[in-house]
Amino acid sequence: MSGFVSFVSAGPGDPELLTLKAAARLNAADVVLYDDLAAGAILDHARKGATLVSVGKRAGRPSARQEHVSRLLVDYAATGVRVVRLKSGDAGVFGRLEEETDALRGAGVGYEIVPGVTAASAAGAAIGIPLTRRHTARRVQFITGADVNGELPQDLHWQALADPNAMTAVYMGKKTFPALAAKLMGHGLSPDTPALLAESVGGADQRLVRTTVKKLAEQLGHENVTATAVILYGALAADNS
Amino acid sequence: MSGFVSFVSAGPGDPELLTLKAAARLNAADVVLYDDLAAGAILDHARKGATLVSVGKRAGRPSARQEHVSRLLVDYAATGVRVVRLKSGDAGVFGRLEEETDALRGAGVGYEIVPGVTAASAAGAAIGIPLTRRHTARRVQFITGADVNGELPQDLHWQALADPNAMTAVYMGKKTFPALAAKLMGHGLSPDTPALLAESVGGADQRLVRTTVKKLAEQLGHENVTATAVILYGALAADNS
Repeated sequence: MSGFVSFVSAGPGDPELLTLKAAARLNAADVVLYDDLAAGAILDHARKGATLVSVGKRAGRPSARQEHVSRLLVDYAATGVRVVRLKSGDAGVFGRLEEETDALRGAGVGYEIVPGVTAASAAGAAIGIPLTRRHTARRVQFITGADVNGELPQDLHWQALADPNAMTAVYMGKKTFPALAAKLMGHGLSPDTPALLAESVGGADQRLVRTTVKKLAEQLGHENVTATAVILYGALAADNS
Repeated sequence: MSGFVSFVSAGPGDPELLTLKAAARLNAADVVLYDDLAAGAILDHARKGATLVSVGKRAGRPSARQEHVSRLLVDYAATGVRVVRLKSGDAGVFGRLEEETDALRGAGVGYEIVPGVTAASAAGAAIGIPLTRRHTARRVQFITGADVNGELPQDLHWQALADPNAMTAVYMGKKTFPALAAKLMGHGLSPDTPALLAESVGGADQRLVRTTVKKLAEQLGHENVTATAVILYGALAADNS
């Protein structure tokens, strides 16, 4: 008797950006483990009677929470049921997936990953622009602005990130953006480089701010940072508005 | 009387990786313009009676084809109908979207972009690994291996691409990978860096080859290059097989 775990990407927040496969896996699941970010209307795809387990607000160190989630996945799978582990955005992009897949592999539990729409794609789409442009944005890059302690990672490739001919998306980077911007400008990125702050894309409280790297850094230095967001900067095209 | 154009991301090929929103837009469309890459079972979501227009195999220069597509979009929209422009993968990632949105903006036609699952996410998911890893892949980057003439772009940021602590996805890069690999190794990337060649992910003819940068370059130097594919290289984790 062995269960199976589907890591299901919930998309960037808009319930319509769930894939058909994700909806089907939710509908077939006996147990759904979810973070609060990946919840709401998306959970309505789970069938009546499925066990829904929130794992998003456990107190204590992140590592303890992660171990708890991994243990839950292994334990539920051991009962032979179909488990869905719901992750916001695309599960493979800054979803801390590896700890959980490692635990399953170690326990001999089979799993699959259902890819999804990542927040950067949704942010560009929300202002009507592509992430790539033929002449000016031939490279797209995603980084996280928060290491395990919530600080700006110190081992990033600053030259790559200060390249004006790339489009960069910063995940979980609101708090550390002033520090990141200082590093980028120190490596030659123009303060006037276009930037977009995109919060709750597709949700009722969507907020899109088009500005520049320097101005966004100043704004976020003073703003009370709570909401999750993705920041784009680089060769942003003219928008749709 | 003014129509509206939805740029709809068809996902990486697996019809189940279409989003709910994409399926809804297809179902509501009067006209669907599609490339052959983004066709097949996905077009079954269009309603009976919708006009389906293939724009994928027009002879002549790419720029002539692009102008033709842009003109079709504007002309159909001018008749007041709902138009879907279907693009493979995520429309905003190497989808040549900007030419078409520029044409619509110039003609005063409203549009939206429905984001989708990009091929890199699907390729990682197909072998059971995330694109990011907490310690070894804090940066993900996407490039195209083909400029407008099908050649390796010469203005890429080689240092950024040779960074062993990133995960890189190369779109449309099968033909030029030997040249790219030579550049990368010339900039210090280890020949033994893990690489994945992923073709037709999720399709009946899916092909996944795990190898190294050097070996893949040698293989592709001899292979007859026809199929589209995405190549990943960098800190690929242990796989699921």
